[in-house]
Amino acid sequence: MTALNASSAAALEALTAVFGADVLPGDASPKYLQDWSGCAGGQPLAILRPRSTDELSRMLAICHAHGQAVVPQGGLTGLCGGAVPAGGEVVVSLERMNRIERIDIDSGTVIVEAGAILQTVQEACRDAGALLAVDLGARGSCQVGGNVSTNAGGNRVIRYGNTRDLVLGLEVVLADGTVLSMLNQMVKNNAGMDLKHLFIGSEGVLGIVTRVVFKLQPLPKGVSTAVVALHDYPAALRFLRHAQQSLSGQVSAFEIMWNDYLVTAVAAGKLRAPLDTNYPVYVLIDMHCGQPETDAGRFEAMLEQAIEAGWILDGAVAQSVAEAEAFWAIRDGVAEVLRDYAPTLNFDVSVPIAQIGECAARIRTELDRDWPALKALFFGHVGDGNLHVVVCKVPSDHDSQMRIEDAVYSVVRSYGGSISAEHGIGTLKRDWLHYSRSEAELALMRTLKHTLDPKNILNPGKLI
Amino acid sequence: MTALNASSAAALEALTAVFGADVLPGDASPKYLQDWSGCAGGQPLAILRPRSTDELSRMLAICHAHGQAVVPQGGLTGLCGGAVPAGGEVVVSLERMNRIERIDIDSGTVIVEAGAILQTVQEACRDAGALLAVDLGARGSCQVGGNVSTNAGGNRVIRYGNTRDLVLGLEVVLADGTVLSMLNQMVKNNAGMDLKHLFIGSEGVLGIVTRVVFKLQPLPKGVSTAVVALHDYPAALRFLRHAQQSLSGQVSAFEIMWNDYLVTAVAAGKLRAPLDTNYPVYVLIDMHCGQPETDAGRFEAMLEQAIEAGWILDGAVAQSVAEAEAFWAIRDGVAEVLRDYAPTLNFDVSVPIAQIGECAARIRTELDRDWPALKALFFGHVGDGNLHVVVCKVPSDHDSQMRIEDAVYSVVRSYGGSISAEHGIGTLKRDWLHYSRSEAELALMRTLKHTLDPKNILNPGKLI
Repeated sequence: MTALNASSAAALEALTAVFGADVLPGDASPKYLQDWSGCAGGQPLAILRPRSTDELSRMLAICHAHGQAVVPQGGLTGLCGGAVPAGGEVVVSLERMNRIERIDIDSGTVIVEAGAILQTVQEACRDAGALLAVDLGARGSCQVGGNVSTNAGGNRVIRYGNTRDLVLGLEVVLADGTVLSMLNQMVKNNAGMDLKHLFIGSEGVLGIVTRVVFKLQPLPKGVSTAVVALHDYPAALRFLRHAQQSLSGQVSAFEIMWNDYLVTAVAAGKLRAPLDTNYPVYVLIDMHCGQPETDAGRFEAMLEQAIEAGWILDGAVAQSVAEAEAFWAIRDGVAEVLRDYAPTLNFDVSVPIAQIGECAARIRTELDRDWPALKALFFGHVGDGNLHVVVCKVPSDHDSQMRIEDAVYSVVRSYGGSISAEHGIGTLKRDWLHYSRSEAELALMRTLKHTLDPKNILNPGKLI
Repeated sequence: MTALNASSAAALEALTAVFGADVLPGDASPKYLQDWSGCAGGQPLAILRPRSTDELSRMLAICHAHGQAVVPQGGLTGLCGGAVPAGGEVVVSLERMNRIERIDIDSGTVIVEAGAILQTVQEACRDAGALLAVDLGARGSCQVGGNVSTNAGGNRVIRYGNTRDLVLGLEVVLADGTVLSMLNQMVKNNAGMDLKHLFIGSEGVLGIVTRVVFKLQPLPKGVSTAVVALHDYPAALRFLRHAQQSLSGQVSAFEIMWNDYLVTAVAAGKLRAPLDTNYPVYVLIDMHCGQPETDAGRFEAMLEQAIEAGWILDGAVAQSVAEAEAFWAIRDGVAEVLRDYAPTLNFDVSVPIAQIGECAARIRTELDRDWPALKALFFGHVGDGNLHVVVCKVPSDHDSQMRIEDAVYSVVRSYGGSISAEHGIGTLKRDWLHYSRSEAELALMRTLKHTLDPKNILNPGKLI
């Protein structure tokens, strides 16, 4: 255990006096030291696992009184180090606050504690007859409080929006222990400033989310899925606009994969490609629908028009759930790619939709010029402007990695793009934040941080 | 002109020295004194009409230096007095900053100055091939900056969301003249706190919106519209959930009208009712779609299932655009009702969707008990939890009106509802704000106000 300064020792003593055996030692488990980014953490002072908002409020009041830094943790599936302790902080894990408090199908809402696992909540809502549309690969481990704190994205954003768009209400505990209850359940509420947005996507630096009201959607009665092949990005753009108009709000995923990515993912996962693997670009598209008997026909009519117009060159429509899952296995095959090509650098950027193709080409050119041997794979959520780039088997030294990051982020910056589309900033992207945000914006972020957390105890060193 | 205090005189002198004839006297036109609420304003010190963000920035810097209060104005269609000067402020009208700067169909975005008239922007986008889904009755007069500052709602929220959900980026001028450029164009951007939400719906008390990036939607290729009759609110709720599941994201309006409202609106507007007028409840539903030839069949199949299930008792599907407009004329007939039954008290509240029917019944009971002669009309946007109540020919004295407001808002409060679903707070609802927001929330609003505008020059006395 690292040496304690006086205030940390006093904080630990005060916490232990009130919460006794519920205060775990900082070395209780290695699981509190790392997130999915793998970035190295330091040992915390202690691990707190509140059972209720009230308990968390009292814990934070003690930490606040002693100026003790706190790192809130959800399911630790983040990719930017946002929940990783640097060392010496108190970790607050929400894992015991995991109750699904109320599913109200008539009102279209679910109220849930922050520590509930996303997939558990999804399944409970589905069993009750509704869709919780927040969805991402980490669904089996991530917690909804983390989804809210990082404004999680995923594959369904094109239809249902980001996590932010699906949050109706929040309960948050502020740095000094004040409980801010904003458990609104209505789609429309303009009674004063909408304060919940301060806490959505701000990675726990302004408050700790303890309860969430999500908006629910009707369960889709059917899903149609296809993989199509295209000549280039402009054709994908034409196809996107055509599909969105023809299916009018029902396009539920639109995942682009450049040839390199598809070929690599198919090989890494030992998968079967649904189409010839020589096409330049592929799109995985699906539609959530409500009258499957007629909707499948509309989906195919949309594809036929796209073939006739020359936007798509070939396509395969899934004839079964198993076939749709096989199509998705290619898009989700990034896990195997990352395993086979480690160490990788993974980029999660966004630029205006019209510029994605050009941006991808420029990133490729920049990388080829300085690192001609490096393999880079491109895929993403086109409808959201979100491009993922995996640079494979990168040099392991920090300096080379920074130069590669600079090359990619400089291109993104030139398009007015974002260096983090859906993963957040944490610690890993903090040094690049000024590529996407102006000095006036950064100054206002710092002002808000200072206003809500003047002692800088909440997740210090993260995001800003 | 009212007597000037020293700092106001100095502010006016400084503004005139820089902007000369562009500074209009406070009595230049009565149009700057009132919004659509009709609530009485006081004469401003002067009227400023900046031509650019830079000009506005320099104007605000001068006002800030002199502690001079400023009232930002858009199209003045607000219903809560949020843009009405109390007297002695400098009015900043955005009317000259009305350029549509860029419509980017491929990226699905439009960039527009805050003073542009909503309908002008809608039409420009439609001509370019896309839908700007922000829409409300005041479209021909309201400005997009006002839509953003009030997070305007309307009839299409059930499908496309509130104004907030359609804003990708903003440019805002802060109290001291700092220009905060956040002109993001991507659906996904998690690079730090999403600061734009501070300014959306906060009625100009934290900054003045000067530029907006809106997200565009595909233009619907067809619209199906029907009016249906139902036995009661629970049936309307069953029908809502059925329609949303069956049409899967394509329900584009779902407007409930209780019998009293429909009968009154038909009479006031000399309209033709599409169905027998003896049913307890009516719903106007429409669907925006992309394959009209098959989608009309899906719409009718959805209605037939609802009749078979007993949720709806009767229905009429519009066979032409003219017929759909005739159906909408009943819902939009509230203007004639307000004219015929003045003075009215108009409520814009929201409660969880499941509770709307019960809430409406309880409001009716409360009003009947104390004011048995008063006529109250109920209608609203059920899918958004939004209930409108018009109380007709109310006593003109302030005390009676406050008692009626208290009766209605007390019921709303008991459901955890909002005293303002879509119209905002302004001055007219400020005294009721604590019915919907906790002391901790109000304290944080005041803290944010003080942090961003320590001299309290931006729209003082509004919202909080």
